[in-house]
Amino acid sequence: MNNITMTLNADELILNALREDITSEDITTNSVMRAPKTGEVELICKQDGIIAGLDVFKRVFTLLDGATETVFHVKDGDAVKNGDKLGIVRGDIRVLLSGERTALNFLQRMSGIATYTRSVAKLLEGSKTKLLDTRKTTPNMRVFEKYAVRVGGGYNHRYNLSDGILLKDNHIGAAGSVKEAVRMAKEYAPFVRKIEVEVENLDMLREALEASADIIMLDNMSAEDMKEAVRLTKGRAETECSGNVTKENIARLKDIGVDYISSGALTHSAPILDLSLKNLHAV
Amino acid sequence: MNNITMTLNADELILNALREDITSEDITTNSVMRAPKTGEVELICKQDGIIAGLDVFKRVFTLLDGATETVFHVKDGDAVKNGDKLGIVRGDIRVLLSGERTALNFLQRMSGIATYTRSVAKLLEGSKTKLLDTRKTTPNMRVFEKYAVRVGGGYNHRYNLSDGILLKDNHIGAAGSVKEAVRMAKEYAPFVRKIEVEVENLDMLREALEASADIIMLDNMSAEDMKEAVRLTKGRAETECSGNVTKENIARLKDIGVDYISSGALTHSAPILDLSLKNLHAV
Amino acid sequence: MNNITMTLNADELILNALREDITSEDITTNSVMRAPKTGEVELICKQDGIIAGLDVFKRVFTLLDGATETVFHVKDGDAVKNGDKLGIVRGDIRVLLSGERTALNFLQRMSGIATYTRSVAKLLEGSKTKLLDTRKTTPNMRVFEKYAVRVGGGYNHRYNLSDGILLKDNHIGAAGSVKEAVRMAKEYAPFVRKIEVEVENLDMLREALEASADIIMLDNMSAEDMKEAVRLTKGRAETECSGNVTKENIARLKDIGVDYISSGALTHSAPILDLSLKNLHAV
Amino acid sequence: MNNITMTLNADELILNALREDITSEDITTNSVMRAPKTGEVELICKQDGIIAGLDVFKRVFTLLDGATETVFHVKDGDAVKNGDKLGIVRGDIRVLLSGERTALNFLQRMSGIATYTRSVAKLLEGSKTKLLDTRKTTPNMRVFEKYAVRVGGGYNHRYNLSDGILLKDNHIGAAGSVKEAVRMAKEYAPFVRKIEVEVENLDMLREALEASADIIMLDNMSAEDMKEAVRLTKGRAETECSGNVTKENIARLKDIGVDYISSGALTHSAPILDLSLKNLHAV
Amino acid sequence: MNNITMTLNADELILNALREDITSEDITTNSVMRAPKTGEVELICKQDGIIAGLDVFKRVFTLLDGATETVFHVKDGDAVKNGDKLGIVRGDIRVLLSGERTALNFLQRMSGIATYTRSVAKLLEGSKTKLLDTRKTTPNMRVFEKYAVRVGGGYNHRYNLSDGILLKDNHIGAAGSVKEAVRMAKEYAPFVRKIEVEVENLDMLREALEASADIIMLDNMSAEDMKEAVRLTKGRAETECSGNVTKENIARLKDIGVDYISSGALTHSAPILDLSLKNLHAV
Amino acid sequence: MNNITMTLNADELILNALREDITSEDITTNSVMRAPKTGEVELICKQDGIIAGLDVFKRVFTLLDGATETVFHVKDGDAVKNGDKLGIVRGDIRVLLSGERTALNFLQRMSGIATYTRSVAKLLEGSKTKLLDTRKTTPNMRVFEKYAVRVGGGYNHRYNLSDGILLKDNHIGAAGSVKEAVRMAKEYAPFVRKIEVEVENLDMLREALEASADIIMLDNMSAEDMKEAVRLTKGRAETECSGNVTKENIARLKDIGVDYISSGALTHSAPILDLSLKNLHAV
Repeated sequence: MNNITMTLNADELILNALREDITSEDITTNSVMRAPKTGEVELICKQDGIIAGLDVFKRVFTLLDGATETVFHVKDGDAVKNGDKLGIVRGDIRVLLSGERTALNFLQRMSGIATYTRSVAKLLEGSKTKLLDTRKTTPNMRVFEKYAVRVGGGYNHRYNLSDGILLKDNHIGAAGSVKEAVRMAKEYAPFVRKIEVEVENLDMLREALEASADIIMLDNMSAEDMKEAVRLTKGRAETECSGNVTKENIARLKDIGVDYISSGALTHSAPILDLSLKNLHAV
Repeated sequence: MNNITMTLNADELILNALREDITSEDITTNSVMRAPKTGEVELICKQDGIIAGLDVFKRVFTLLDGATETVFHVKDGDAVKNGDKLGIVRGDIRVLLSGERTALNFLQRMSGIATYTRSVAKLLEGSKTKLLDTRKTTPNMRVFEKYAVRVGGGYNHRYNLSDGILLKDNHIGAAGSVKEAVRMAKEYAPFVRKIEVEVENLDMLREALEASADIIMLDNMSAEDMKEAVRLTKGRAETECSGNVTKENIARLKDIGVDYISSGALTHSAPILDLSLKNLHAV
Repeated sequence: MNNITMTLNADELILNALREDITSEDITTNSVMRAPKTGEVELICKQDGIIAGLDVFKRVFTLLDGATETVFHVKDGDAVKNGDKLGIVRGDIRVLLSGERTALNFLQRMSGIATYTRSVAKLLEGSKTKLLDTRKTTPNMRVFEKYAVRVGGGYNHRYNLSDGILLKDNHIGAAGSVKEAVRMAKEYAPFVRKIEVEVENLDMLREALEASADIIMLDNMSAEDMKEAVRLTKGRAETECSGNVTKENIARLKDIGVDYISSGALTHSAPILDLSLKNLHAV
Repeated sequence: MNNITMTLNADELILNALREDITSEDITTNSVMRAPKTGEVELICKQDGIIAGLDVFKRVFTLLDGATETVFHVKDGDAVKNGDKLGIVRGDIRVLLSGERTALNFLQRMSGIATYTRSVAKLLEGSKTKLLDTRKTTPNMRVFEKYAVRVGGGYNHRYNLSDGILLKDNHIGAAGSVKEAVRMAKEYAPFVRKIEVEVENLDMLREALEASADIIMLDNMSAEDMKEAVRLTKGRAETECSGNVTKENIARLKDIGVDYISSGALTHSAPILDLSLKNLHAV
Repeated sequence: MNNITMTLNADELILNALREDITSEDITTNSVMRAPKTGEVELICKQDGIIAGLDVFKRVFTLLDGATETVFHVKDGDAVKNGDKLGIVRGDIRVLLSGERTALNFLQRMSGIATYTRSVAKLLEGSKTKLLDTRKTTPNMRVFEKYAVRVGGGYNHRYNLSDGILLKDNHIGAAGSVKEAVRMAKEYAPFVRKIEVEVENLDMLREALEASADIIMLDNMSAEDMKEAVRLTKGRAETECSGNVTKENIARLKDIGVDYISSGALTHSAPILDLSLKNLHAV
Repeated sequence: MNNITMTLNADELILNALREDITSEDITTNSVMRAPKTGEVELICKQDGIIAGLDVFKRVFTLLDGATETVFHVKDGDAVKNGDKLGIVRGDIRVLLSGERTALNFLQRMSGIATYTRSVAKLLEGSKTKLLDTRKTTPNMRVFEKYAVRVGGGYNHRYNLSDGILLKDNHIGAAGSVKEAVRMAKEYAPFVRKIEVEVENLDMLREALEASADIIMLDNMSAEDMKEAVRLTKGRAETECSGNVTKENIARLKDIGVDYISSGALTHSAPILDLSLKNLHAV
């Protein structure tokens, strides 16, 4: 994860997560360890998967104490296996104990998303179709979760409502027609934005193509209709297929020929990857 | 969710989640709707489960615009079914559109946790054992996720490192012995805290009992040993069983006789409950 | 200015501006007025121009005291003349006095930008070329200044580094070539972003066209070369002309045929529009 | 700029300005440079003027990355000329690229104010009259803009409503008379504050003198009346002349004999000084 | 307390104080009251004194719940007696219970300061000397404590390091002499500030007078020397006496003839005034 | 004071305290010292007592300037005497001068609390009874004040409303009976919390014992009744005595036999310990 993004966009979130877990002090650790003592602990993998978020994991400890050192034997995106030693954290044992849970909470979730994304992306291998995330992320976790999707081999859709245009049924209804909606968006939005339109059938698709939409989202259409949509589009726009896509049901979409398939499940329903800090010892 | 907690502990998180999604403006909505217009949209259930977080869902909209009104046909904890209309949101259509994703991101995740918790808690019915959550929550989501666990029929363990004592192997190591660790905690920590000790075998259990620990966590022990542990304890301490407990494997623990079983999966691996806002129309 | 943007992205900036001006209390006003007293004051125009920021002006007072009322006789974008009464603010006189300077500081600057933008945009009338702003805005004022540009008849370029791609010489240098830079951007960035490339001569332009850049910025090129660039582009990309464009020198660019001309001066060097609060009286 | 002021009062504003420009990441730079690489870039002057804000410029980069180094060949207050190399920034090229615009936005505006202030202050040379700024600063930029005025050879009036007393017509009206207003202010305000009163004619001036005001602001009075006012005052109070003072019209005020002339234009209408970062190269 | 000051400068402090006391929820109240219920509680005085901070007390409850109502039978500055009913708070009983401690913590401390200040100020009655506070306030409580001093009949010295000049021995040492220190301050500081100089003997006093200091602080001088100092000053400067002044030792200073006596004890050592919320009942 | 607590829970409070004292700059220091200069100043004790808060004192300076160094000759909890040199601060003299007041405001208050606590705790020596603090702390100072109580030999009661249960009369009233209140708390609150009940007479005590309360607070009961209460309790619960306990009246409670006596005066009415920075000199 880029250092600038970490400094500007992640640090405050990490500190708030730590403050959520330590509102006055870690009373257990402070009960038994009243002075600093240097120690080391190992990051252990307890489940096969893809690791993601090592920089965030590290940052939890260095924000607590700048003197904490971390050595990783893997890097984000690597496949890891149950039993692997992934790295070592060295520093004041009280820092290791107090930061452990927050650091793991970030790393396990990010790795869980990367792992799930990789498994879904694999099912599209051999096709030209790319796997996209959505805005269905956990509140206040988007910067971490969208990064984890990329680590897992997925691609990012727009980051938020301010940096991408997606005209859905309600927007089209407000504008009066697909054509008018696209015209209004082209007039209002910064010209650097592509215009995406959601269509539910082939008629709407034709309208969107005529209106020169840049991207067309095929929403909950049948496989057959989607194939016809791709044929009609002839590369005049990019195509995206959407609608409750999961690992269980994506295979059927592989040969449709759309440019992108987006799946909210990548971020809203991936289970974590089990990781642990073990073998703490003084050094 | 209590109003005071909402005001003091949740509002800032909700606003930050909204700011994560709207860094300058919702360009799509603003392209096609340049003036306020009152409308209504329905909250629809698309999957069977337990609803949780209706107040948070509502707060997303009222923080955007205090004039937004919400009517719910269900309340937190109710079982909901695919197809149910759960409520209505009424207000400036631009507010309904701009707040939709953030409101659903909260509600779906909280309801997912409540749903999963209920399904796990059901497997303990008929026993005296209660289901507990852990600190394995999503960063900056604890106040929402621990509430959702309660809605689902689970119970909360300590909130964070500052309000509960749990002496694990590393703490015991630092203190020198179980006895010494408990003594140090009793001396250091506010006397209103119960002292919990994690033990890995029956010897440690005996030591913990002698040291007058208030709660004993049986960590990754065999069913047999746990039964023996409960017998040895004879009510002199509360007992908690812990270690990768999920819906798939909890049944085997039902008859052990421990007071509590804690499961990180409740918060770290529950998939969301599918919900949606539909049928937006002007009124 | 949209209410949601105001709530999420402007309110904190307005409050901080007020706190910058009132660190403990308005000692002058509090010296002479120790109790609330309702009064009215008029917003007067003291220079011809375009008004912009009335909602922000109003918000300064309502954030200080929700009971303050405002009536405007004009709306954002209207041409106003020296001597015009633009509106009335009614409320506790102490609020009117304490908020006056901050409210005017926002309104004068925003109106200054709208006024200057309108005067520059006028010089492009009759051509197809649109006037764009840049990221050369005052720190922490972007949300207000970009809005003011739109009110003045200009258009917004990307909002910031996160929502638009503009490959400049240094980026191209790092990538190795225009072609490689565009390829890397297409691979890395969310697919909803258009790719803009800055070129300094016709060779680079050809390279950018081959690489399928979406937008080509002609940086400090001669009028002749820009005309040739537009001819070569044949609509395969959008074209933008850039480089120290001001009211004084924009006329020469009118007939080049580019789609956009961007000017940092709109936001970094527009003088304010002179406005004043007058005729305060009790009511 | 003083380090303590930077730490306590400027850093948060600088960080927020950076966050305004980078809401998730610098996608252009991150597209083409995925790993750190050390480089150097030159700060070049493109217009004659006075430089101000070098510490702030530097801080933008060191807040992004503490390892960034800066060498300046000039210091705040120096006259700089078109073409001058003013300094060098050395660090991770990604930091140089991502911080460039924000750093220049600060430095250009501050230098613009210093340049304009110097040019106005020059017109008062040979007189005893000092040039003052006002509270007509850009919202959330006061700490930078008031510093720039000093660098340009101007002096600061009160910082804000909490640290100076200025009784204007409305305050006097509320109190009932100049005499009563001064009395109330002397009673209410901390005794360390001087009392300034705004007067519009010689009668009010006499009243203010009788009331022992410390400073008298002559508001929009004729040159003749101001001369008479200075004569009548005989040093019993300090005098300040105010009212739409700009570079174009200040000369006429030079020989009036007032102690101070204040000008809002110094901060609200100074154009920026053109500066640029050039010749980025790896080292 | 002024509403604007409350909104801009106090609300965030009050909210943070509440968050300090409620990090997730008020578990006791929420255990026994799971739904809103309207009630009333009385504010009772348990010790004779001066009441101060009623608006802050009220704000604690209205920030928790805007619907809470408060009726006071006294106003800030009133003398109150043990047993007096000072007012009523009416609202959701859970709000009354959860806000009680924080509201009283503010009110008791502010009233304690007002009470102590009144008792000290009384000892100066009959003299022209006014009682001043200092910057020896509790961290993050200054806005409340300086207000309480005024309510108790004291006067405020400078608010902080940014709005008043006080040249102490170390400043004079750095400047080289009293004269030079005053000259440097007159040159550097905004001209609206009075210059105060701390002197330790009559020679320094003479120097300060010659340098035209506006205020002279007599630091730990004998009563005799102070009398001589006042005589020498002859009204050319204001005089302030300082140095461990308390209720026990102030009487001896009454007839010195200085304009001001400052006492840190007003804010750093005043005991609280005992107040209580009693007779909570549903309505 | 633990480093992690300092980083997460104290730093922001310390910075805000500094910002309260320096809203733009330290104009006095900056007037006479325009460049950095290294110096040293001594921390001197001016009153006998117990020192507490040295880490916080130090942090004030290192937050202003990381290069400031501190050497202490004592440690928290040590008895110090009038005239003792407690340590040295070395760094930029401007930092020493600008941070002095805030650093002392923290240290004096914390040491005042430790000193008062020690003097009260001494009066309980020889008994088994421990001295407790309360939630009657200064707003936004709890983390510092509760630490100071421990340094002085006192013990901490619950930190806040979220981490301890204390059922008072109003809670019992809402629940209907002591028994029901305890039952509801056991059901609702995390099981790691002990349940404390406030009782006013022996009947309520018996009820609380029957309900298996963990802790019983004897509120304003006579010495005789309290002795009887202790006898009746027979160790089945911990006992706490409460009600306007001060240094003046605690002796009478020494032989009652309760486990704890709590005193709000420790934090709400302890006078400061007089400390000073002296002998600043360049090095």
